[in-house]
Amino acid sequence: MSFPFTAKNVSLSKGPDPRTSIQVERDAQKVNPQAMQYFLEGSKERAELIKSLTQQMERDPILFTDGSYYDLNKDQLREFTAAKINRLSRYLEGDSTEVFNIRSSLIGVIDPAVGTRIGINLGLFLSCIKGNGTAEQVKYWAVDKHTNKIRGIYGCFGMTELAHGSNVAGVETTATFDRANDEFVINTPHIGATKWWIGGAAHSATHCSVYARLIVDEEDYGVKTFVVPLRDSNHDLMPGVTVGDIGAKMGRDGIDNGWIQFSSVRIPRFFMLQKFCKVSREGKVVLPPLEQLSYSALLGGRVSMVLDSYRMLARVSTIALRYAIGRRQFKGDNVDPDDEEALETQLLDYPLHQQRLFPYLAAAYVISAGALKVERTIEETLDVLDKAVASNDQKGIFKSIEGMKSLFVDSGSLKSTATWLAAEGIDQCRQACGGHGYSAYNGFGRAYNDWVVQCTWEGDNNVLAMNTSKTLIKNILALEDKGKAVKGSLEFLNQLKEYTGSGANKVVLNNAKDITDIKTFIKALEVAIIRLGYETAKIVRKEKFDFVGAELVNLSKLKAHHYSLTEYVRRIEEHDDASVKPYLYDLGRVYAATVVLDKFSGIFLTFEVASTSAITDLAKSVIPNLCKQIRPNVVGLTDSFQMSDMIINAAIGKYDGDIYENYFDLVKRLNPPAKDKAPYSAALEAMLNRPTIDERERFEKTIETGEILSK
Amino acid sequence: MSFPFTAKNVSLSKGPDPRTSIQVERDAQKVNPQAMQYFLEGSKERAELIKSLTQQMERDPILFTDGSYYDLNKDQLREFTAAKINRLSRYLEGDSTEVFNIRSSLIGVIDPAVGTRIGINLGLFLSCIKGNGTAEQVKYWAVDKHTNKIRGIYGCFGMTELAHGSNVAGVETTATFDRANDEFVINTPHIGATKWWIGGAAHSATHCSVYARLIVDEEDYGVKTFVVPLRDSNHDLMPGVTVGDIGAKMGRDGIDNGWIQFSSVRIPRFFMLQKFCKVSREGKVVLPPLEQLSYSALLGGRVSMVLDSYRMLARVSTIALRYAIGRRQFKGDNVDPDDEEALETQLLDYPLHQQRLFPYLAAAYVISAGALKVERTIEETLDVLDKAVASNDQKGIFKSIEGMKSLFVDSGSLKSTATWLAAEGIDQCRQACGGHGYSAYNGFGRAYNDWVVQCTWEGDNNVLAMNTSKTLIKNILALEDKGKAVKGSLEFLNQLKEYTGSGANKVVLNNAKDITDIKTFIKALEVAIIRLGYETAKIVRKEKFDFVGAELVNLSKLKAHHYSLTEYVRRIEEHDDASVKPYLYDLGRVYAATVVLDKFSGIFLTFEVASTSAITDLAKSVIPNLCKQIRPNVVGLTDSFQMSDMIINAAIGKYDGDIYENYFDLVKRLNPPAKDKAPYSAALEAMLNRPTIDERERFEKTIETGEILSK
Repeated sequence: MSFPFTAKNVSLSKGPDPRTSIQVERDAQKVNPQAMQYFLEGSKERAELIKSLTQQMERDPILFTDGSYYDLNKDQLREFTAAKINRLSRYLEGDSTEVFNIRSSLIGVIDPAVGTRIGINLGLFLSCIKGNGTAEQVKYWAVDKHTNKIRGIYGCFGMTELAHGSNVAGVETTATFDRANDEFVINTPHIGATKWWIGGAAHSATHCSVYARLIVDEEDYGVKTFVVPLRDSNHDLMPGVTVGDIGAKMGRDGIDNGWIQFSSVRIPRFFMLQKFCKVSREGKVVLPPLEQLSYSALLGGRVSMVLDSYRMLARVSTIALRYAIGRRQFKGDNVDPDDEEALETQLLDYPLHQQRLFPYLAAAYVISAGALKVERTIEETLDVLDKAVASNDQKGIFKSIEGMKSLFVDSGSLKSTATWLAAEGIDQCRQACGGHGYSAYNGFGRAYNDWVVQCTWEGDNNVLAMNTSKTLIKNILALEDKGKAVKGSLEFLNQLKEYTGSGANKVVLNNAKDITDIKTFIKALEVAIIRLGYETAKIVRKEKFDFVGAELVNLSKLKAHHYSLTEYVRRIEEHDDASVKPYLYDLGRVYAATVVLDKFSGIFLTFEVASTSAITDLAKSVIPNLCKQIRPNVVGLTDSFQMSDMIINAAIGKYDGDIYENYFDLVKRLNPPAKDKAPYSAALEAMLNRPTIDERERFEKTIETGEILSK
Repeated sequence: MSFPFTAKNVSLSKGPDPRTSIQVERDAQKVNPQAMQYFLEGSKERAELIKSLTQQMERDPILFTDGSYYDLNKDQLREFTAAKINRLSRYLEGDSTEVFNIRSSLIGVIDPAVGTRIGINLGLFLSCIKGNGTAEQVKYWAVDKHTNKIRGIYGCFGMTELAHGSNVAGVETTATFDRANDEFVINTPHIGATKWWIGGAAHSATHCSVYARLIVDEEDYGVKTFVVPLRDSNHDLMPGVTVGDIGAKMGRDGIDNGWIQFSSVRIPRFFMLQKFCKVSREGKVVLPPLEQLSYSALLGGRVSMVLDSYRMLARVSTIALRYAIGRRQFKGDNVDPDDEEALETQLLDYPLHQQRLFPYLAAAYVISAGALKVERTIEETLDVLDKAVASNDQKGIFKSIEGMKSLFVDSGSLKSTATWLAAEGIDQCRQACGGHGYSAYNGFGRAYNDWVVQCTWEGDNNVLAMNTSKTLIKNILALEDKGKAVKGSLEFLNQLKEYTGSGANKVVLNNAKDITDIKTFIKALEVAIIRLGYETAKIVRKEKFDFVGAELVNLSKLKAHHYSLTEYVRRIEEHDDASVKPYLYDLGRVYAATVVLDKFSGIFLTFEVASTSAITDLAKSVIPNLCKQIRPNVVGLTDSFQMSDMIINAAIGKYDGDIYENYFDLVKRLNPPAKDKAPYSAALEAMLNRPTIDERERFEKTIETGEILSK
């Protein structure tokens, strides 16, 4: 070994030197991480902004987060979170929308509970007002009352109930018009209608945007939204409002999710959000012409979850890959068995280990493209809509509604697919770090626990995926029955005739070469969606949608992969820095081969999109060869995410790769070696030093006693 | 509605009534849960014993565990765990091995950290002594010193190190023979050799079975085992022993996992475990003839993890299925759209929901059979070995070694496959409960966090799976090259010629009927293993084993499914109660169709074990029809696990099915509704009631100030 070895303490023999392993590889990188980061974030400006915002938080003693965060219990997390929000409110006060969005996205990685707490107030609560309120209502609550600066008012989002989640139209809280007093009476009629999971309700929120059934003269007009104050300016609960803490959760314990029961709580009539639905002083209900738009509060959240998925995949794959470079285990086939001095094999030099981790590295890259695209689309669509509404341009409004519908489909399939993939990625990356992946200080446990709710909230993934694919199937039916051409991201469905039926073209992926030709692969993906969609549509004609739930979920996943991969390739083609392109294409191929083809090989084979020999080649040569290709540049490809040690927040995942020293240092700092006994030692000593059972039983059961008692 | 409806509080309208839903279904059950339980546990006697042991724990105020357990933080869990172990030691004192094993298995579900703490002492530490020590050493430590009664000595298991996990032969702690003093000097030479993850070390253990390199006269004889005292009888640390707490983990925080550094700690020569290796007074090393047996300490743990997997799958599928019966969401295709009074659809009546959950219900049933078989086999094998060693019957010893080798293969593939499946099952069952699955009080979060380490410890799943399949491949190579017949659970490999090569029989599963014929299915599974194994063996001839890691893992999973399914069917055939058989066969078919065929459809298609039309039928008819078949008896099939509410420990999973009342009651009991502000309200009020930014900036940046300063 020619690399100098340093140890912080006495070592009686040469210990492991993971730091050198990573440094040697880093020095040999061909990838320019800075250039790559510009691609990943979409522009140099955005990448640099991210850097400066990270630095701000890293230096702020309240916002700074390190391994001690993993030791906080629920009560401590709640306190910590409140302090951080208080601090962040000062930063956000001056942020532009762009800066705010990026800052939130970063907080979402560093401390997701804090991110959610802010997102509920500024995202869900305000979006609900913006989506459903008149311009005057928006101005009043968002601006005049300073909610947009997290001042004065702190909002929560009262949609779900104990017995109602995904089916929002079924909520049972009532808002009954009281004509005499010109008020609505908000009421929770029974336990099932208790507002449940309401983030911020337990201890923080002053107001709630309540989804409740509008009742006028005993007629039920369906679910509308109402602004209901929960706490007064002294932060005491309003009369009739009962609030409780939902208590411990799987993760995100920093959020004070609560339940709310309203017992005949009165609000003025004008607290109903009335962009699309009004109740007049006399109780006349003017019904919504554009009600489709009223659930748009959830759209922004979905979109940001795709971006979260990219960042989470980047983070966990960085940790696992850095560990896999420093960690050595067994002498593998790459070591000369006669060389007794040879070091053990780096984990990452095992082909299986590459195949376990590279899919998530690739997924971070590919999903970043999908995330940026859907983010841009929602901004544009909402912008057009706002302008159209402001100028009362009916044609513009309807065009925006079309755009919004596509966005529901695209964001629904992307949100579900990406959040599932990230959950899987966290878990697989943890497993790839063996036992050390299980330590809280290496970040995976908290990451997983905080993450997985993303698969359930703001549209359960299965429900979202099915809804997305129902639209896809309806498009196919309309195309078949009425020849109606498909538009938007599903436009490729128009090739239906070409790829289905007896005379149609057959296999698309014939061999390894087809799989790694990324355009051919995207074509194959389209054909797989078309053929699976076509067969599913046939069943739907007979059996209704519920019967094909499993197919719908698969279709949604394939569609999301198609969306991201297509955009990823488009972005690469357009990109002006040629130096990064070969690596980007390889990562795209890894994604195609593993995340898509390997997982869906059953579908690709059944629908004859891929030949048997192509699938055989996939396992035998395509995947191993792509991994071999990626392997030398792993350090560069992970450094490209430009995540500082604070964002990584994992002892074994730090930049310097000094996995053992960093990990041991942190463990010792947070749990100083025992000088005294544990607080609960008494119970152990009582157990270990207890008298024999005979003695404790007063010798009543001994043979001797037996003899006495039997006499 | 003809069922009476009760509410604990005022309800202004009819709330949900999940209790009635489950009761109606329970009343209509055709399955006899008691009879089914006898099948699942292998005998009436065992099932009844389980019941009485559960009752004991349920009534013991220290051992009783309920939802409040989910609120305990790390320090509280540690204390709680120590109290429970102290209490349990009194029960275990009088237990027969059979009773002890079952009690441990139940504790493993109720409070896995407690189960592990006991398992480390009585399982790993004592098994290490039994596996490696002489009869006298075993008698001394296990019996005379009362370790087997958790008295006097409390052992921990010092195998893994900070830089060494799976590669036990690579550990770097040294045990150097000091001839002058007739002692071994135990030393941790550098940070990488720090014993790490040692359960019980941080605060509890008095002794450690240390895996260390035996060094005599500067020669390294490889890794042997040594008993090293850590704490004296006053529970103070021995000189030279440094112990620290590993700190927070993803789960099982009740275990005081620790790290240990030995700084020239001296132990008498006779503290080396010397069944297979002795160092004489003069320092002569007598090397082990039977060293294969020395790692058998881990075997028992692996076997019990398969049993754990069965119980965990039973538990989580019961929770999710009971919830899916009580929970209603949307009006699905099974509801008449014109019936305004119709209730929403029960989750479990959605085909997709059935397809999401029934695989795990079926897996609990099928894996129970594999678990019982491997448990019986290890008992028999160890029994034969002990007798052979006692009578110095060399032939018997070598036969036992053969048995032990098969057991390594069978238990390695089963442990990895079953623990992965259970991890997946916990996660999928959680997701199937939507948002409520994320509440700590419904059990999934803690279950997952506590569980997933099973995939990593005592043999990392990937490493175990690869080792298993290496044996399988070597068997194929020996069969091909030397015509050596295969024995044991891999005997079916002898059909190699019949199913490979050009003249071989082709597709086994041609249609839906073949898939649901369970004997045909098992045959197909054998053919899949043979063909994948044959192709993998071909690659191994050229490329070495590391190259085919992914194939090896798949082979191991298929082999484990084959083992469990074969034994499951054998057990059904042998079973004397015909009434339960139809349900058992259906569950076996569900397992075959979903857990095996659907997941491995790519392999079954590529190797032409199943036809394309069979796989098409699988999704289109086989799986939906099997689910339809199972649906009416779900309550009975889950009640058959006979898990009391304490074992279930999930508010939405209780026997009475009163999901909302039970859940709300628990949440309120553990988190009484807010009467006062939160402890951290000050931070929030400081934020909300802060002055405007201009004021806080002392009006220095206002336009007015600008005018003054620009003058």
